[in-house]
Parts: sequence; structure tokens; C-alpha cells
Amino acid sequence: MTADMAIGLDLGGTDLKAGLVTRAGEVTAFLRRPARAAVSADAPLEVVAGAVAELRRACAGPPAGIGLGCPGVIDPASGALVGRTPHLPHWDSLRARLAGRLGADLVVENDANAAALAEHRTGAARGARVSLTVTVGTGIGCGLVVDGRLARGARGGAGELGHLPLDGRYPCRCGVPGCVEPECSGGGLTARAREAGLDVADAAAVFAAAAAGEERAVRLVGRMTDRLGALIAAAVQLLDPEVVVIGGGVANAGDALLVPVRAAVGRHALESHRRGLRLVPAQLGERAGLVGAALAAWDAAGRAAG
Amino acid sequence: MTADMAIGLDLGGTDLKAGLVTRAGEVTAFLRRPARAAVSADAPLEVVAGAVAELRRACAGPPAGIGLGCPGVIDPASGALVGRTPHLPHWDSLRARLAGRLGADLVVENDANAAALAEHRTGAARGARVSLTVTVGTGIGCGLVVDGRLARGARGGAGELGHLPLDGRYPCRCGVPGCVEPECSGGGLTARAREAGLDVADAAAVFAAAAAGEERAVRLVGRMTDRLGALIAAAVQLLDPEVVVIGGGVANAGDALLVPVRAAVGRHALESHRRGLRLVPAQLGERAGLVGAALAAWDAAGRAAG
Repeated sequence: MTADMAIGLDLGGTDLKAGLVTRAGEVTAFLRRPARAAVSADAPLEVVAGAVAELRRACAGPPAGIGLGCPGVIDPASGALVGRTPHLPHWDSLRARLAGRLGADLVVENDANAAALAEHRTGAARGARVSLTVTVGTGIGCGLVVDGRLARGARGGAGELGHLPLDGRYPCRCGVPGCVEPECSGGGLTARAREAGLDVADAAAVFAAAAAGEERAVRLVGRMTDRLGALIAAAVQLLDPEVVVIGGGVANAGDALLVPVRAAVGRHALESHRRGLRLVPAQLGERAGLVGAALAAWDAAGRAAG
Repeated sequence: MTADMAIGLDLGGTDLKAGLVTRAGEVTAFLRRPARAAVSADAPLEVVAGAVAELRRACAGPPAGIGLGCPGVIDPASGALVGRTPHLPHWDSLRARLAGRLGADLVVENDANAAALAEHRTGAARGARVSLTVTVGTGIGCGLVVDGRLARGARGGAGELGHLPLDGRYPCRCGVPGCVEPECSGGGLTARAREAGLDVADAAAVFAAAAAGEERAVRLVGRMTDRLGALIAAAVQLLDPEVVVIGGGVANAGDALLVPVRAAVGRHALESHRRGLRLVPAQLGERAGLVGAALAAWDAAGRAAG
């Protein structure tokens, strides 16, 4: 008998989050392990395998499926990584290698897409026909739901919101002149603050300094939220969503991020498109990726059964 | 018995194009009439009604459906115009009024969406899962096909490519600061050329002057194609299409438009997204809108029958 659970995994450069997830997206078991990506190219595979073994033991019968969210461009047809991801190099045959190691096939999904699917089905974008989930962390991720379905693009590259050429002033490893990710991602904000002489550990520290009135931090947060609003405005004009969900680690700043980003979307988007648009915080927090990966596995199990 | 034809209509500010269209998108009868939009708010309704009567007479039995493409934001559920269109003011109850006048219901679709549907099913984007059709005319229109389906957005506003805030230097009636439509639409190019002292009737004349080496025209066409490429790059990074189709009156410039726009997309888009991307001229020319409107009517007839 197959269990009423799928295994969801969210593998980042820092850690692995994993859980048992019902068809409705409820998490009944959760664990977190260091990803060990710095140890060796294969170390994260062992971390994933260990977590899957642990969750299988907690599960009554074989899981309905296994889904893995990770950074990078995933081919929609094969689930293979297309091109490399800087956080997990040498992982282009990820799905085949993991399937061999686990003795079971699995679904691989881009982590931003997984988060968007989870927020759409069970979180802040529930009920919306068109939604956009923007993940503001080290970089900027974005997943699109169009007419109720995840839109992955022709080659898995949809949602590359961060690298739009919107008047960025710092070079980005992506190579696009004017790319704004170096100013409006968490990693970018931290780097700009350090260049300005602030002693900050991360983006949260820059927001804290701005809240305390530190002038350089205020200016940098102002620029960051303005450019993030311009990026979101561009996506809103192209896709006309009902809801834009803001998640990722930097979104823990709450209203200090949301309020100025809402104002910036108001400055940069057409009136017709911002009327009735909701810009809301993510509801699933750090679990969005694993829930979305598990939901993708549930979908694949349904297609196989149907 | 219902005929094997649908009636397709494409109503612009200048003229109405209409035709009989098979389920496969073949046009078997075509006519063009002045839209008479300047005469009165209702004059175009009479033009449409006259064309429909003429096409009905040419048709063996009642048509399978009637589809109308026109500018403006069309509500995906009701077919009503949301907000006004500058070329056809006072038309917010267009579908109901026309249905009453014609004695038959009809499908109303945004003209850029209709062109995108036609190019996707029977034209330059045939076979693509994700495509973008950009119509460069007086303004810039854009229709999106995502996973084989027209993506209209939550309120019919998807594809507002022209008004992205990409470093535009001239005010636009849309109100978005930095909007680039005043520099990269046909109307915008003509206006900029006249400001620069060139005596030009339209965008085609600016392209002709540039081809003859006129320095101001060369500079303006360079800026126009660079910004159009940046707009397309933004859409490509968000949607990851296989094909971008360029149509509209300005596309009659052929390679003088396409070659520099391809180069500009190369400058502004991520390498991962432009690899394998095709940027091609539209195949259906001025008939794309009416063919797409007729195909939308065929789809609606299929849903009603199924």
C-alpha cells in the first residue's frame, strides 16, 4: 500500500529542508540538515539520501512520490539540470544520480518554482488564477503561475526576474548590463552596505541599521526596494497577476520591505495593472520549497496513476 | 447546418479587416473597410455590422461563430472592454451592443492577443510551446502563448510590454516614468524624428532615411531597436519562449528592424535564454488579427458543442 505522504526536499547551498507532505500540502514531519555542499560535489547527495531514508522510516508504506527543489534551470521534460548552479556545481545529472542512489525515481523542480506552486495551492496565492511568487534571498528567485499552472518556460528558464536590465549600477556575474540583482537581492544589499563602510552580517542587519536611522542604510534600502518594485512592476505588466507573493529570507523584514516595495510598484506600474493587485507576504515561510516539491511529486504520481 | 467558416474581424482606429476563416485558420474571403471611428462613437459598429452581413451572404449557412479583435483590455470572462481604448472611445459595452446589433453572440479578444493566437496556431510560432508575438505599429502590442494557451492575465491585461520602465526619456500618456514606448513604437519613432527636424510621414520613412545614411534617422533607429531589444529581453527572461514573432506595420522594414533588434536582445538577455531563441518575422501580416479572432470564435464554438 502506498502511504498518504510524499517526500518533499528543498536543497540549497547551505542546508537541506525535508518533510512528509500530504496531498493537500500539510507537513506532518520536518527535518533540516546541513547541505555539506562545501565538503564535496557528492556530499549533498548523501545528505539527501540520509533524509529520505529517515522520512521513509517515518512513513506507513512507500511514499506516493519524492520531489526535490533546488536552484538552477531544470528541463521541464527530463527534470535534468540545464547549465550549472553556482551553489551546487557538477550537478547536471542530478535526477539520474539521485534516482540511482534512492532506488526510486523523483521529480526535480527549480526551488523558486516549487515555492510558487506551494504558495499558489496552499499559501498566500490560494485562489488566484495568475500569481507571481518572488523569493528575495541571496539572489532573487521568481515562480509564475499562469491560469492555475506553473509556467516553466520552453527550457525551464521562466521567472528570471532578478537579471532584468533595469538601470542597475553594479556588474553582475550574469553579464547583462544594467542587471539590478546586485542592488536588490539580499546578497547584493549586504555587499553594497559593506562597500559603504557598514559592518553588517547580512541583509537583515542592513534593514536593522536603516530602522535605527543609519543614513547609508536608509539610502541603500530605499534604492533596493525601489528597484525591486520596478522589477515586480515589469512582471505585473507582462503577466497581469492578481497576487504577488514576497518570500525568502529578506522578507522576514516584514513591513520594512513590503511597504516601500508596494509604493515602488505603485510608481512603476500602469494604473490599470496595479488596481486590485495584492502584494502580500508569503505564508509558508522556509517550508514553501519542500511543500512545492512534494506537490509536484503528487502531481506526477497522479499522472502516472491516471 | 452550420457553415465550415467563422467570421473574423479586426477593428483598429483606421480600418476594419474582416474575413471568413476555416477551423484551420485559412482565409477564404477578405474585405477591408474604413473604421469611421472619427465620424461618431457608433459609426464603427455600423461598419462591423455591414461587414458581417456581407460575409454572412458569402457563407453557406450560419457561421460557426463571430470573433472580433480590437485594441484595449478585454475581460477574459465576460469579453467586456475594461477601461477605454484611445482609438475607440465609449466602447466599454462593446460585446453586448454588437451582439444586439448582429443578432448573435460574439467573442471579443484584444487585437495583440488575437495576432499571437494566429501566429501560434498557423503562422511563425507554429509548434512552439511558449511564444511571444510583438506587434510594432502606432503603439507596441504583445500577446503571450504559455504552454500552448493564450495567457490573458487575471484581468485581460497581460502582454503590456510597451510600457515597461526601461530608461525611456520621453513622457508617455501611460504615466509610467521611464516608459520606452515613446521611443520604440512606430508612432514614437515618427514623433522623435519630427522633433529632430526630419520631414517624415511615418516610421517607414524614418527607416528609409536611415538606410540613405541620414545621421539623425540612423541614431533614432539605433535607439529604437536597442530599446525594443531590451523590452523583448525582459519578456524573454520572464517567460523563456522558443520563438519571438515580430509583426505590425513597422515590421515591414524587414531586416532593417529585425537584424538590430536581434543584436539588442543579444546584448540585454541572459546567455541561457537567448541560446536557441528564434526571433522571426510574422507570417500572417495584416490578417493575423482577424484570423486570431476567428480562431477564438472557433474555440468558443467547440466549448459550447463539447
